[in-house]
Amino acid sequence: MFISFEGIDGSGKSTQARLLAEALHAAGIDVIHTREPGGSPGAEEIRALVLEGDPDRWSAETEILLFTAARRDHLEKTIRPALASGKVVICDRFADSTRVFQGVTRGDLQDKVNRLHDEMIGVEPDLTLLFDMDPEIGLSRAKGRQTSEERFEDFGLEFQEKCRAAFLALARQYPRFTVIDAARDIELVAEEVATLVKTRLGA
Amino acid sequence: MFISFEGIDGSGKSTQARLLAEALHAAGIDVIHTREPGGSPGAEEIRALVLEGDPDRWSAETEILLFTAARRDHLEKTIRPALASGKVVICDRFADSTRVFQGVTRGDLQDKVNRLHDEMIGVEPDLTLLFDMDPEIGLSRAKGRQTSEERFEDFGLEFQEKCRAAFLALARQYPRFTVIDAARDIELVAEEVATLVKTRLGA
Repeated sequence: MFISFEGIDGSGKSTQARLLAEALHAAGIDVIHTREPGGSPGAEEIRALVLEGDPDRWSAETEILLFTAARRDHLEKTIRPALASGKVVICDRFADSTRVFQGVTRGDLQDKVNRLHDEMIGVEPDLTLLFDMDPEIGLSRAKGRQTSEERFEDFGLEFQEKCRAAFLALARQYPRFTVIDAARDIELVAEEVATLVKTRLGA
Repeated sequence: MFISFEGIDGSGKSTQARLLAEALHAAGIDVIHTREPGGSPGAEEIRALVLEGDPDRWSAETEILLFTAARRDHLEKTIRPALASGKVVICDRFADSTRVFQGVTRGDLQDKVNRLHDEMIGVEPDLTLLFDMDPEIGLSRAKGRQTSEERFEDFGLEFQEKCRAAFLALARQYPRFTVIDAARDIELVAEEVATLVKTRLGA
């Protein structure tokens, strides 16, 4: 089972991905926890290229290509082998993040993103959990982090609102989505997520 | 006018690109000499990712994406601005190299390369000069160079022969190609190239 975690910056999805991995592991389920961009040695190098430095250093089109290159490497080297050996894959961001961050926020490039995805990736998660919350809360959480990777957070509140709306639109479009109210207490959200995934796994 | 220089490793195309740039400059023609992968700060960083390290570190599909990302950045930041300001652009390798090195040599990925090109690049040179020669001569020339970038040269003679055939097939397919016999004396080839380009420029 391939599960992606999606949401705006500061939505808590990375924490929740880690907590779910721990919960499944504790339940004796073989699981890997990975992330995008990155998740394989090559893709992590591409991540550094894209997420560090001036936010305007790449055009949206070049970013789509770089993220898709990283995704292809991640899929070949990490995700496919893990799924083939029967593991549950928990992935912090996948193609939906590209659909939102490169496909919507800087002009309408969704069709381009989708055509490139179909051509070079062609795989969707079995389940996508969208961690939804007010972007104002998300942004203040994200800004509290110390990191050299601030590309998307640097774009501000209006940008995050656009992203939230785009994620919710994807959730209406694809049945694989489940929307989680991420503004609640971390433990409460974690319990809901673990129950939901264990039910789906029949565990 | 946008001119690309193509050919197998050791065909002398890089030397010829430099000599043509010098000849046009000496004739008072505004010219830039650039190269792929690379040719803009971002694309040069992608070049380092692709051309250094283990030749098998990326799949052909991931390489296609990385080269196309580099090409898109190069096009936006270097080639289009130069053409817009009336300069002649001399480019050492362009999309035909991807058609050959990623599209032919590791399985038949030419259609994938072309669809990605049409989607994300959409530009072809006005003139493509193919520096053609016996791969055995090319390989011995290329091996004489000291560089940490040996990805394609490392694949050996059979690989170079496949590349030569693929380049010649492209030359038959696209009228923008002119095939140059690159096994001859450097000065002789340079003179032929300069005359050909100056004639095309009406200079």
